[in-house]
Amino acid sequence: MTNSLDELRYELALANRIIAHEGVLDGFGHVSVRHPHNPNRYLLARSRSPELIEPSDLLEFTLDSEPVTPPKGEMYGERVIHGCIYQARPDVTAVCHHHSHAVLPFCVTGVALEPVFHMGPVMGQVVPMWDSRDEFGDTDLMVVKPEEGRSLARALGPNWMVLMARHGATVAGRTLRELVFRTVYSHANAEIQLRAMAIGKIAPLNQAERQRAEPRQLQPRPMGRAWEYWTIRLQKAGGLPPRTGVPSAAKVKRAAKRASKARVKRSRR
Amino acid sequence: MTNSLDELRYELALANRIIAHEGVLDGFGHVSVRHPHNPNRYLLARSRSPELIEPSDLLEFTLDSEPVTPPKGEMYGERVIHGCIYQARPDVTAVCHHHSHAVLPFCVTGVALEPVFHMGPVMGQVVPMWDSRDEFGDTDLMVVKPEEGRSLARALGPNWMVLMARHGATVAGRTLRELVFRTVYSHANAEIQLRAMAIGKIAPLNQAERQRAEPRQLQPRPMGRAWEYWTIRLQKAGGLPPRTGVPSAAKVKRAAKRASKARVKRSRR
Amino acid sequence: MTNSLDELRYELALANRIIAHEGVLDGFGHVSVRHPHNPNRYLLARSRSPELIEPSDLLEFTLDSEPVTPPKGEMYGERVIHGCIYQARPDVTAVCHHHSHAVLPFCVTGVALEPVFHMGPVMGQVVPMWDSRDEFGDTDLMVVKPEEGRSLARALGPNWMVLMARHGATVAGRTLRELVFRTVYSHANAEIQLRAMAIGKIAPLNQAERQRAEPRQLQPRPMGRAWEYWTIRLQKAGGLPPRTGVPSAAKVKRAAKRASKARVKRSRR
Amino acid sequence: MTNSLDELRYELALANRIIAHEGVLDGFGHVSVRHPHNPNRYLLARSRSPELIEPSDLLEFTLDSEPVTPPKGEMYGERVIHGCIYQARPDVTAVCHHHSHAVLPFCVTGVALEPVFHMGPVMGQVVPMWDSRDEFGDTDLMVVKPEEGRSLARALGPNWMVLMARHGATVAGRTLRELVFRTVYSHANAEIQLRAMAIGKIAPLNQAERQRAEPRQLQPRPMGRAWEYWTIRLQKAGGLPPRTGVPSAAKVKRAAKRASKARVKRSRR
Repeated sequence: MTNSLDELRYELALANRIIAHEGVLDGFGHVSVRHPHNPNRYLLARSRSPELIEPSDLLEFTLDSEPVTPPKGEMYGERVIHGCIYQARPDVTAVCHHHSHAVLPFCVTGVALEPVFHMGPVMGQVVPMWDSRDEFGDTDLMVVKPEEGRSLARALGPNWMVLMARHGATVAGRTLRELVFRTVYSHANAEIQLRAMAIGKIAPLNQAERQRAEPRQLQPRPMGRAWEYWTIRLQKAGGLPPRTGVPSAAKVKRAAKRASKARVKRSRR
Repeated sequence: MTNSLDELRYELALANRIIAHEGVLDGFGHVSVRHPHNPNRYLLARSRSPELIEPSDLLEFTLDSEPVTPPKGEMYGERVIHGCIYQARPDVTAVCHHHSHAVLPFCVTGVALEPVFHMGPVMGQVVPMWDSRDEFGDTDLMVVKPEEGRSLARALGPNWMVLMARHGATVAGRTLRELVFRTVYSHANAEIQLRAMAIGKIAPLNQAERQRAEPRQLQPRPMGRAWEYWTIRLQKAGGLPPRTGVPSAAKVKRAAKRASKARVKRSRR
Repeated sequence: MTNSLDELRYELALANRIIAHEGVLDGFGHVSVRHPHNPNRYLLARSRSPELIEPSDLLEFTLDSEPVTPPKGEMYGERVIHGCIYQARPDVTAVCHHHSHAVLPFCVTGVALEPVFHMGPVMGQVVPMWDSRDEFGDTDLMVVKPEEGRSLARALGPNWMVLMARHGATVAGRTLRELVFRTVYSHANAEIQLRAMAIGKIAPLNQAERQRAEPRQLQPRPMGRAWEYWTIRLQKAGGLPPRTGVPSAAKVKRAAKRASKARVKRSRR
Repeated sequence: MTNSLDELRYELALANRIIAHEGVLDGFGHVSVRHPHNPNRYLLARSRSPELIEPSDLLEFTLDSEPVTPPKGEMYGERVIHGCIYQARPDVTAVCHHHSHAVLPFCVTGVALEPVFHMGPVMGQVVPMWDSRDEFGDTDLMVVKPEEGRSLARALGPNWMVLMARHGATVAGRTLRELVFRTVYSHANAEIQLRAMAIGKIAPLNQAERQRAEPRQLQPRPMGRAWEYWTIRLQKAGGLPPRTGVPSAAKVKRAAKRASKARVKRSRR
C-alpha cells in the first residue's frame, strides 16, 4: 500500500511538471489527485509553482479542503476548486486548474471553445462557461470560498472541462493520466481554433463525430504514447521530480518498457 | 544489402525525429518508408511518439498494412494511410501523416492552402482536401479501415499533399529526404499564409511560377543543405536516434562531409 | 548594512535577468532600484543588455540621473526615466523600462491595454498612454532630457504602468519583486488581450473586480511563488548572475526554503 | 593584414549564426561581407545553412559573383544578390538575404512594412518592394541571373532593405554589425506591426521621427550592446563558430571587455 501511494505521489509531481513543461501551466495553477485508498481525501501540493513540485511538497486534504495534518508550508488559496469537484463527482480522480494563454481568449470573449479536430473531443462534448459574477457579483475572481467551489462544480456538471470567465479553466479526469491528456489536448484545440478563426469560419466536429472521437482518443494506447513522450521530453530538459533514490535514465526506460508491455497485454485481451 | 537496410532504418528514425523537432509532429503522427528491396513492403514504427523512434522500433508491413511478423509492441491504428498510398502510387517512397498547428487551421475552415513564397510549391501545385464525411458519414475521424485509406489515397491523386478535414494532413515523397523537406516547408508555407491573411489579401504564386519553382527547390542541393541543418540541430539537442555503435559527433561530421562531396560530384557531372 | 546592499545588488542583477529570460526584455531596456539607505539615489547598470547584468555592472545615480562617481563604462541614454519617476513618486522603489512585443501593439495602435484576467489588475486600475509628440513634437522618441523624463512621470501619475506611443512601456513597483511581478504579468495580460481581440469582443474586468483583484494578487504569497519559479527557471538555463562566492544550487535551495518559511511566519501572524 | 582578415572571416561566420539563432534565417538565406582589402571582392560561404557556417566555409568572389579560386564545395545559387549590390552601392559593406516569417507576410500581401517603434527606422526611411514579375515575368522566383541581381539592386536604390514579392527580403549595411542589427530589428518591427494590425489601425513614426531615430539607433553604443548580447546568447547555446585555437569563454569575455573599453574611449572623444 505504501508503495502504490509513493508511486502516485511521484506521478502527481510528474503530472504537475509535464503540464507546465508543455506550456499550459506557468507559475500558477495546480494539479491534484484523489487519495487512492480513501475517496474522501485528495493530494495537492503546498503553495508552489507546478513545475517545481516534488513528492515531498504534497499534502493530504479532506474534501472540505482542510489539511489532514497541519502543513509546514503555505497552502494554495483556491484548493476548494479541487475539493468541491471531488465531492460533486465521485467519478473524478484528478483535477487541474490553469490559466493557459490559448484557453483564456475564450474566457475573455465568451466565444465557445469547440472541438475542431479529432483530438478536440477529449475535452468532452461541451465545455460550459462559469462566470463568478452570476452568483457572487464583483469579486477578486479567485475561487476560495466553499460556496464558490460548489458553484463552479455545478457549472462543470457532468462535463470534463469548465471555462472560468476572466480567469482560466478547470479540467477533470477519471485518472491522472487522462487528466493530463485532456488538459494538454484541450489547450491544443484552443490554439488551433484561435488560429483558424483568424482566417475564416470554423466548421467544428458535429455531435456524432464528437461522440465517436471522445472514447477513441481516451483509450490506453494514445494516452500511454503521449505520457511516454511528455515524460522523456521533461527528462531531457532535466525536469523530472526528485525521488528517494532518483531514477536513472535506464530505470525510466525499463519502466516505460514495462508500461508498454502491460498495455500490449491489456489490449490483446 | 543488410547495410543499406540498416542505414535506411536509421534514416527513418532520424526523419521521424527531425519532423518532430522542427515542430510539425507532436506526440502523434508517423513517418514511413517503402522497403528498399521489396516494393510491396513498407517500414513503420510500432505505436510510439515520432520524436522517440529508434531503429529497433521499426516494423515491416505488407501494403495491406499487415505486419510481416507478429509485432512485439502495439501498432499505429492509422497505418492504412501509408499502405494505401504505397498501393495507389508506385512513385511514392515515403509518407508522413501529421497534425501541424499551422496546417490544421486550413483543415478546420476549408480555406485553401496555397504556395505563397518560393518554397511553397514543394508541397505540389495543388493541395486537395479530403473529408471523411463525404464517403463515410459521421466517424471518429480516424483513418483505420482499408476503404478509408483508399479513399484518402484517391483524394491525394497525383499530388504530394492532402489536407484532411478536422484532422490533419498526409504528405508523400519520392524519397525520404524529399518527404521531410516537403513536410517542413509546407508547414512553413502554412504558417506564413496564416500570418499574411491576418493583415491583408494574399497574392500567391501563379501557375507558371509554381511549375518552375517546384523542381527548382526539389534539387539535391537545397534538400541536402536543409537535411544537414536539421540533423545538426537535432544532434545539438541530444536527439539523434541510437545506433548499434552510436555515431560520434566526429562520425556525423565525416558523413555530412562525404554526403556533401557526393553532391558536388553529382552536380558537376 | 554592506551585506543588505550587496544582496540588493545581486537581486537587481537577478531581476534584470528574470525579466529578460521571461521574454519581456531583449537586448534593450533596463531595471533599477532605489538605494536602500539613501532615497535620493538609485542603482542602475552601466549600458549593457539586461540578461547579462552582473552586480559589478551596477552604478549609483542621483535622482537627477548623474552618476555619483565617474563610471568606468558607458551609461544608458534613457536613465532619466528612472530618476524622474523616483523624484515624482516617493512610494516607488523600483522601475523597469521595456519594449515587449506583446505590449508594443497597444503603443502602436492606441488600443487601451485593459485587465482581461484576474492577474491583469497587478498592472494597476488604469494604464495611461504617453506620447512624446504632445509636448516635444517630432523627436527620435528616446527619453533622454530631464523634461522628457518629468513629462513621462506626470503621465504615469499615481498609476503603476505607462505606455509610450511608438516606443514601449515603463513600469514601477513598491518593491523590486513587485516590479518584476507586475512587469511579467502585464506582459501576459497584453498577450492574452491581443489573442482575444483576434477572435471577438473582449469583456474586461469591471472597476470593482479590478479594485479587489489588485491587492489580492500583490500579496507576498503569489509574488514569492512566482519569484522562486522564475529564479529556478533561470538557474536551469545557466543564467543566474555571478556572485563573489557564486551560490551553489544547494545554497539557492536553502535560501528559497528560508524565504518560504519567513512567508509562512508572516502569514500566520 | 592576415590577422584582420582572419578576424573578419570569424565575424562573418558569427554574423551568419547570430541572425539564424535570433530566428530570422532558417536553413536558407546567407550573409556576406565585402573584402576588407579589395573592394572588388566579397566573402560568402559555400552552399550551407547559415547557423552551421565556419570560417573555413567562406569563399572569395568577384563582384560578378565568380569564385576567385575554384571552390571545393557547391555555391549558393543566389549569390548575384550580393555581387550586384556591392557593384551598385560602394557604401555597402555587408549584405543579408533572408526569408523571415515575420517579414514574408508583407511580401505576400503587398502591405507596406513601416517603422512602428523607435527601433524601426534602423531599416531605413522607406522599404521598397521588388517583384520579379515586373521585369522577368513568370520565373521560379530565384535571383540567379546577373540581370535579376541588378534589377533587385536598382529596386533597393539608396535604401537599406528591399522586400521581394513572394520570396523574402535583402538587407544591406555599412558594416557587418550594422547589417546584423538592421536585420534583427527590421524583423522585430515586422513582428510588432503584424501583431498591431491584428488589433487596430497602426500609427507609424512620421517622417521627422524616422529621420531622427535612424542615426540615433545606429550609433556604436546600441549596436555594440546588442552584439555582445547576441554573441553570449549564441555561446550559451553552444553555437559559436569554431576557431583555429577555439576561443575559451574567458577569451570571449576579455574580447568583449576590450570592445567595451574601446567604445568608451571613442564615445569620450
